[in-house]
Amino acid sequence: MVVVMSPDATDEDVAHVVARVEGVGGEAFVSKGVVRTIIGLVGDIDSFHHLNLRTMRGVADVHRISDPYKLVSRQHHPDRSTVWVGPPGRQVPIGPDTFTFMAGPCAVETAAQTLEAAQMAASAGATILRGGAFKPRTSPYAFQGLGLRGLEILVDVGRATGLPVVTEVVDARDVAVVAEHADMLQVGTRNMANFGLLQAVGDAGRPVLLKRGMTATVEEWLMAAEYVAQRGNLDIVLCERGIRTFEPATRNTLDVSAVPVVQATSHLPVITDPSHAAGRKDLVVPLSRASIAAGADGIIVDVHPDPESALCDGPQALLGTELRELAAAVRRLPPVLGRVDAGERIRTA
Amino acid sequence: MVVVMSPDATDEDVAHVVARVEGVGGEAFVSKGVVRTIIGLVGDIDSFHHLNLRTMRGVADVHRISDPYKLVSRQHHPDRSTVWVGPPGRQVPIGPDTFTFMAGPCAVETAAQTLEAAQMAASAGATILRGGAFKPRTSPYAFQGLGLRGLEILVDVGRATGLPVVTEVVDARDVAVVAEHADMLQVGTRNMANFGLLQAVGDAGRPVLLKRGMTATVEEWLMAAEYVAQRGNLDIVLCERGIRTFEPATRNTLDVSAVPVVQATSHLPVITDPSHAAGRKDLVVPLSRASIAAGADGIIVDVHPDPESALCDGPQALLGTELRELAAAVRRLPPVLGRVDAGERIRTA
Amino acid sequence: MVVVMSPDATDEDVAHVVARVEGVGGEAFVSKGVVRTIIGLVGDIDSFHHLNLRTMRGVADVHRISDPYKLVSRQHHPDRSTVWVGPPGRQVPIGPDTFTFMAGPCAVETAAQTLEAAQMAASAGATILRGGAFKPRTSPYAFQGLGLRGLEILVDVGRATGLPVVTEVVDARDVAVVAEHADMLQVGTRNMANFGLLQAVGDAGRPVLLKRGMTATVEEWLMAAEYVAQRGNLDIVLCERGIRTFEPATRNTLDVSAVPVVQATSHLPVITDPSHAAGRKDLVVPLSRASIAAGADGIIVDVHPDPESALCDGPQALLGTELRELAAAVRRLPPVLGRVDAGERIRTA
Amino acid sequence: MVVVMSPDATDEDVAHVVARVEGVGGEAFVSKGVVRTIIGLVGDIDSFHHLNLRTMRGVADVHRISDPYKLVSRQHHPDRSTVWVGPPGRQVPIGPDTFTFMAGPCAVETAAQTLEAAQMAASAGATILRGGAFKPRTSPYAFQGLGLRGLEILVDVGRATGLPVVTEVVDARDVAVVAEHADMLQVGTRNMANFGLLQAVGDAGRPVLLKRGMTATVEEWLMAAEYVAQRGNLDIVLCERGIRTFEPATRNTLDVSAVPVVQATSHLPVITDPSHAAGRKDLVVPLSRASIAAGADGIIVDVHPDPESALCDGPQALLGTELRELAAAVRRLPPVLGRVDAGERIRTA
Repeated sequence: MVVVMSPDATDEDVAHVVARVEGVGGEAFVSKGVVRTIIGLVGDIDSFHHLNLRTMRGVADVHRISDPYKLVSRQHHPDRSTVWVGPPGRQVPIGPDTFTFMAGPCAVETAAQTLEAAQMAASAGATILRGGAFKPRTSPYAFQGLGLRGLEILVDVGRATGLPVVTEVVDARDVAVVAEHADMLQVGTRNMANFGLLQAVGDAGRPVLLKRGMTATVEEWLMAAEYVAQRGNLDIVLCERGIRTFEPATRNTLDVSAVPVVQATSHLPVITDPSHAAGRKDLVVPLSRASIAAGADGIIVDVHPDPESALCDGPQALLGTELRELAAAVRRLPPVLGRVDAGERIRTA
Repeated sequence: MVVVMSPDATDEDVAHVVARVEGVGGEAFVSKGVVRTIIGLVGDIDSFHHLNLRTMRGVADVHRISDPYKLVSRQHHPDRSTVWVGPPGRQVPIGPDTFTFMAGPCAVETAAQTLEAAQMAASAGATILRGGAFKPRTSPYAFQGLGLRGLEILVDVGRATGLPVVTEVVDARDVAVVAEHADMLQVGTRNMANFGLLQAVGDAGRPVLLKRGMTATVEEWLMAAEYVAQRGNLDIVLCERGIRTFEPATRNTLDVSAVPVVQATSHLPVITDPSHAAGRKDLVVPLSRASIAAGADGIIVDVHPDPESALCDGPQALLGTELRELAAAVRRLPPVLGRVDAGERIRTA
Repeated sequence: MVVVMSPDATDEDVAHVVARVEGVGGEAFVSKGVVRTIIGLVGDIDSFHHLNLRTMRGVADVHRISDPYKLVSRQHHPDRSTVWVGPPGRQVPIGPDTFTFMAGPCAVETAAQTLEAAQMAASAGATILRGGAFKPRTSPYAFQGLGLRGLEILVDVGRATGLPVVTEVVDARDVAVVAEHADMLQVGTRNMANFGLLQAVGDAGRPVLLKRGMTATVEEWLMAAEYVAQRGNLDIVLCERGIRTFEPATRNTLDVSAVPVVQATSHLPVITDPSHAAGRKDLVVPLSRASIAAGADGIIVDVHPDPESALCDGPQALLGTELRELAAAVRRLPPVLGRVDAGERIRTA
Repeated sequence: MVVVMSPDATDEDVAHVVARVEGVGGEAFVSKGVVRTIIGLVGDIDSFHHLNLRTMRGVADVHRISDPYKLVSRQHHPDRSTVWVGPPGRQVPIGPDTFTFMAGPCAVETAAQTLEAAQMAASAGATILRGGAFKPRTSPYAFQGLGLRGLEILVDVGRATGLPVVTEVVDARDVAVVAEHADMLQVGTRNMANFGLLQAVGDAGRPVLLKRGMTATVEEWLMAAEYVAQRGNLDIVLCERGIRTFEPATRNTLDVSAVPVVQATSHLPVITDPSHAAGRKDLVVPLSRASIAAGADGIIVDVHPDPESALCDGPQALLGTELRELAAAVRRLPPVLGRVDAGERIRTA
């Protein structure tokens, strides 16, 4: 940490800061400039936080200079991690050497629709099935998902098609039941800062797909991952799904830079969700391609056998032609970037 | 709703839209322009949503033209509401005729600190005591609040000083116990879209202070209020607490326009939180003044007897001088705007 | 400046930074932490910029710790400035002791409309007349202003009503002619970073009204003012006019915090433009009140005798009732905040 | 256009709107809903703008439903355009079939540095040379470019290496001299809404590289292009260079979605500038790859033989290793997407 004193700070003000820092066991290095004095702090950063340095007389600013997260940082864990999803004997990797394509319906509506969507996904090369049973909706008047019944349909379909399933959990009270059925628990964008849910999910013993809050900085997102990690669960996959900006042409702006930014600071895998970022079908294929090329460890995409009748997010779900285009991209681009399809690295032992 | 067809839409595309709309009992008015055709829909908007109009061939865009919220809208409830907070015999109003000043410590740390902060608040004119027992923190390594013990301290101090208390609840599982003790339940900015929590709070039988998500539009915020209202609870006070923008000089940008914008579309009272918006002490007084002048029905402000030792948000907590300035503003400005202090309208019967 | 080394930086990397800093005459203080080393730089900051410290091996980050602007900073000019606008014998002040109300039509359309708008403005208490002759428009198909002819009308009307005039200049090639006629030159939000225009305006010998770029940070805005100041012109008034955010309910979000933020760091006067921020008439009065209460040194507001026929920004122009409400606010609020109306401090000598 | 009346609008209010619309030669279709009436307008949209519909009594909202730009729209020009850059006999295409790699130093500093950078660019596969002679800088104390002398160096180096040159023009007064020397004129992000400059550049008879304003919507950007096109110049290449968001990890957020969004609505070519978007060297290669994969018609990248001594934007300039990686991406990815290198399509006749 670096404390910047204001130009009119007195020697006493500086001495007070130094005394407080030393009082909690830290060291303080004072550099007197022409206009300002700066003080470099060395020691336990958490103890410095409690000092409220910013409230002290003469202090103009305080800069933090190390990452506030630890377990998910690459600092003490330089190699990038691989997370395995699925039951023993059929675990799909998400990590630095592979490319993992996940697909499925935004919402589970019926067994038939879910099965058809899963078959579409599988035939396009997907190795993990997504599907929503508990849906967080902005409007209380919108379809809220089938709940437990939807979860059961999804799991049945996953078994029938041989695909591990990932599904969202929106309430800490539902974590146990969802973890009992699903192979991977998704925390959605609106719940990224729902700390009770993060902790419950961290305790659940399943891999976690943690979506970025639509208005969270990368640092806040990694802090959310740290909440999960702190409960002893490091099987976390991060998912960039678009951030809120001033641009109305897309529902959100896919922050494709977040992929290499995360990979530079955290060892966790990172994928993207082009469907929810764009909110329009015609952008899903170009954004999927862009994500692969940016180095994403996977993508997650909405498909639906009949988007016109979808109960949730029909406008972004892919159908035949686009899905074939996407399948081609998923097959051709990762090898150019030195990755193999996750389907070829399934752990069967 | 208005459906805008693309310039190359065919007559069949238009007929298909009309047929689908009529199929759910709606009427469709077609206006053929030189370049485009537009279709005005009349009928039950919820049934139109399920049509996924945007996915139909030839549809370029769909404009919603009525508010998506109902219970909290002024449309069928033109008079602005007053919410009463406190036990029978000591209910403080928040509404269009009064100005309500709420203050207290960001976090309850000890009984002594809370009492001292409450006395500061009361002597500056506050009529409701705020204080945090359950704290949502971005870092899992930060102070998370005293929990139930903190709640008990707060309630004791409220009773001792004669002030009703408002406190945050961050987890649906805690709603019952918090509602048992506190006079008003606060839903914080990070939980504005935690729909399970909103519903639990709606069921709890206490007035609710609903903070705006730091990246929520006014419409999304009113939809969150609608979740609470749907459970039969219309005692909701909205609180603007700063939105996330590109400007780094303040922690968030107080969107003071949100006050008259909300008042134009919803009958619910709306207050502001200048402390959390600014994140710096020197802005709390000017932003409080601005909020009063913009027509806010109240403000909520952090005070702390010793900000340097605060366990949470010390940098924005007011002390002596500033608090006196704020007290003066709270006394002098509302009358200029035709409001009386809420303390003069306490319902004792 | 503070240089933060990455955890894996070597002693050589540190020595290289120190050598480069000393090579341009600076001093470098090294603080070795457990994880990282930080280096505090003392000396001429401009020479440090040329070092490209961020490109050096082992450097993780560089924090600037002093303000990048000088002439407009309060650091060496602690007293807030007053800018005088108008011809000798009729100079209106804008500064810390007064409140200055400027009003007029967004665009000069005809002599009659301009005169009527000016009379409305004057009768509501305005002491400076605004009006646009050269209009920057997003669409090339929109009304672009009357140009020189509009300028002449504006000046005639200003003379007839006894009000100094402020008008926008959008092109460096027009600065001379505008400066010949107008009392104050406005640089609009779209031109805040048009550095050639800033320099031309700085050379023109007239007070300048510098609007904030709708997406400029306060720091960038003060840097733009520094461009003007560098040409020897310190008669600059800053104008907050709303920033671009995600909120669609208002055209832009009035950043009312910018008023006290600017006043804390710069000695220049700062006013707001509630009309252009809101883009809707019903918010102009509440936002004007909020601006006064936040401590603005003035406001600038659109008025039009017949908004329905306005060629520019009719939806935000005030008419009768609202204008009377605004006049009342301008009369009653500034005294509560210790300011007198600028009209009572006109310099006639 | 669609006019939405408020729920309390009277029949007279509706009749007034209809009368005004018909008064300018338009047709108005009225749809009476249960709660609201909507009016669809058919006719000349520009004449409707002058009606100030929003100011009329009973009008709640006005929705525009067609694109506000014409010449740059795909509506009447469905085939995507190719722009040719360079002197007769050596014209490089930028368009839908090719991929064009532009590179060079952010600023021209010396003849030697520029030549070395150009050779780096050429050997990595670049076919157009970029370089800044007139630099717009946020700080008046930063290096402002060599001006005319820089332009001459750049042109000499372009000739020596056989590369057409593109350079920024920041002031309408410089357009003639820059157009005399350079093959393509760049309008920078800060000048996207400098309408006088856009018109001057439109008159200059050279292809234009129009960067997106860092806070401009795609629609505003296309309106800026329309200003250039209106002067008879349709040789416009759009360049996405990052938008301003809340995320601090990158200087700006590359809006890679803008590439397919622009291609869907405009016939103009669109490229990206990963260097200025990211502001950090380690992201340039992944963002370049992502841009190619999203379908960009080209990229423009900073290179510098010695970033540590660069006078402008050293931290983002590529050197040896990264440049080789980029060269490999430029060679391998476009063919996968069905494009050939622009160097293979140079028009020599």
